[in-house]
Amino acid sequence: MNIALLPGDGIGPEVIAQAVKVVKAVGNKFGHTIHFEEAPVGATAIDLTGDPYPDATHEVCLRADAVLFGAIGDPKYDNDPKSKVRPEQGLLRMRQKLGLFANVRPTFTFPSLIHKSPLKLERVEGVDFVFFRELTGGVYFGEPRGRNEQGTKAFDTNVYSKEEITRLARMGFEAAQKRKKLLTCVDKANVLATSRLWRETVQELAPEYPDVKVEYEFVDAVAMRLIQWPKAYDVLITENLFGDILTDEASVISGSMGLMPSASLGTENKLFEPIHGSYPQAAGKDIANPLATVLSAAMMFDYAFGLKAEAQTITDVVNKSLAEGVVTEDIAEGGKAYKTSEVGDWLA
Amino acid sequence: MNIALLPGDGIGPEVIAQAVKVVKAVGNKFGHTIHFEEAPVGATAIDLTGDPYPDATHEVCLRADAVLFGAIGDPKYDNDPKSKVRPEQGLLRMRQKLGLFANVRPTFTFPSLIHKSPLKLERVEGVDFVFFRELTGGVYFGEPRGRNEQGTKAFDTNVYSKEEITRLARMGFEAAQKRKKLLTCVDKANVLATSRLWRETVQELAPEYPDVKVEYEFVDAVAMRLIQWPKAYDVLITENLFGDILTDEASVISGSMGLMPSASLGTENKLFEPIHGSYPQAAGKDIANPLATVLSAAMMFDYAFGLKAEAQTITDVVNKSLAEGVVTEDIAEGGKAYKTSEVGDWLA
Ligand SMILES: CC(C)[C@H](C(=O)O)[C@@H](O)C(=O)O
Ligand SMILES: CC(C)[C@H](C(=O)O)[C@@H](O)C(=O)O
Repeated sequence: MNIALLPGDGIGPEVIAQAVKVVKAVGNKFGHTIHFEEAPVGATAIDLTGDPYPDATHEVCLRADAVLFGAIGDPKYDNDPKSKVRPEQGLLRMRQKLGLFANVRPTFTFPSLIHKSPLKLERVEGVDFVFFRELTGGVYFGEPRGRNEQGTKAFDTNVYSKEEITRLARMGFEAAQKRKKLLTCVDKANVLATSRLWRETVQELAPEYPDVKVEYEFVDAVAMRLIQWPKAYDVLITENLFGDILTDEASVISGSMGLMPSASLGTENKLFEPIHGSYPQAAGKDIANPLATVLSAAMMFDYAFGLKAEAQTITDVVNKSLAEGVVTEDIAEGGKAYKTSEVGDWLA
Repeated sequence: MNIALLPGDGIGPEVIAQAVKVVKAVGNKFGHTIHFEEAPVGATAIDLTGDPYPDATHEVCLRADAVLFGAIGDPKYDNDPKSKVRPEQGLLRMRQKLGLFANVRPTFTFPSLIHKSPLKLERVEGVDFVFFRELTGGVYFGEPRGRNEQGTKAFDTNVYSKEEITRLARMGFEAAQKRKKLLTCVDKANVLATSRLWRETVQELAPEYPDVKVEYEFVDAVAMRLIQWPKAYDVLITENLFGDILTDEASVISGSMGLMPSASLGTENKLFEPIHGSYPQAAGKDIANPLATVLSAAMMFDYAFGLKAEAQTITDVVNKSLAEGVVTEDIAEGGKAYKTSEVGDWLA
């Protein structure tokens, strides 16, 4: 197995290092030979090469069977709307060049952490849904975008083809078939032309999946219901920008934001990353929670290699670390706070 | 005072009827002569005239000093992405033709209802913020929008001018000066050209309001923080689509969705409406909660006529109805459930 490591910025390198320990341990246990190749991305790559997603990094990703990604973003590039190179551009270019059109973001709860949810217990207990966010289309990449000549007017273009919607929607339908058989198509079909194409396309596909119940909900309604009745959802599919907002909203309801993994899938390439950010304030302090990245490695064994036992082994040991309190300060709650590296060692 | 009444669809007519009773009572108490003129809008207007916002209705609004609006939307027009006339088009056309560029949506709590919040008490207690959502620009109205010839591709355009951003932002700054002096500009400046113009414009205005602290946050981060730390906000300004999603998210955190009023303000015209929808399942049953519409009438006295004592009288009587349990079934909780019309009579 060839795994590309893209630690990125902030706490990225520290959490990736722990995932590597765990992946190596799993490789030893199950007899897999695993090669790692590391490459820079984000602010780190700008500082090194001037480019947030250098060609050499892209080559490393193309050579790999899967990419393990940390986080990107550095405050020195924030709040400057005029700056020319931004770390995020690297992320977007990477998604596009690797064809990672489906961002899979599960939301589930950990019994030992559920009391940290901002929601009342009865609302979140047993929450278990997954978003399929379209990741290489929509307003993130649509043209034209920019300013008029005088700079007094700005515009962006949201654009979707039936094909882009279809391949994302099929992933959602297939996931629903293996889960609770409910698919929610999230759009703004009462306003947007793109959303009407989404709804129409999903309606056309639905008869091919007769065992899946399909619901259509407006993005504003979902923003409410995710807080009110999160247990009502199973699989949600949506476009890039709505997915950006709603998956982040969803990520805090379980109380375990620091533990939520994600996968970004394409036809050729697959990338796995924690959903938390680069958390620059904590960088270099050996205090960041590595569990989301470790669980992303579990998703990697499952989605990239079809190795469910390996994935389960990782999930099990993460649960064990939670049960035994071998955790970082963010979730230690008065118990002993372990260092990032100590948690990684223990898991491995 | 000339007030246009646009009851609209579903429970709209029932809740507007109660607001009218209350407005009349306030008029009597304070010695104002109040004229009402009613006009159809939404599905109701489509059924009558084929147009969800008929010219005659627009004339009524132009003649009035303020518009009291109920709700629009009817299930018979939903889930049909190909239908040509939709009630929502009436709403959008009305906003645009009346120049209602600022949608003001407060979120606050009622002590007697806060236990209904999906959030834990310590998170919501004392929440008090207000959104200024831009309402006549952005992707709601940008051109081009539609499909390619074959119908296989759809597109929408998000567009903002500096002028549109400036007039909305100034309202936000001024509101912040009268409140907790914190303004949060919500955008997606790491991806969108329009958002970068928003951020730039707000940065340019900020020195004119030295007493206001300005923060810039990404829309996905705000979607999280509204649930995690809603008390951290004071005034939030944002573009049309982000505002649509975030104000709906915000509306459920206080536990009093059925009570939240809103104002839509322009240079010439002003409209007031409950933020809840047309709730078709409850239509005609005399069970809908009229308090959000009644509180919208309070906002009308304040924002349209500068009559603060009149507004306060309405707020006070609403608080009294809550304290004494003269409320509809949605918030009666085992106590006696009053009818919509009974609550209106009691308040008046
Ligand atoms: C950093 C940013 C460009 C990115 C996005 O908007 O997609 C992030 O918010 C995410 O969700 O991965
Ligand atoms: C009905 C719809 C067009 C409308 C909007 O998106 O603005 C509604 O959601 C609102 O927020 O008033």
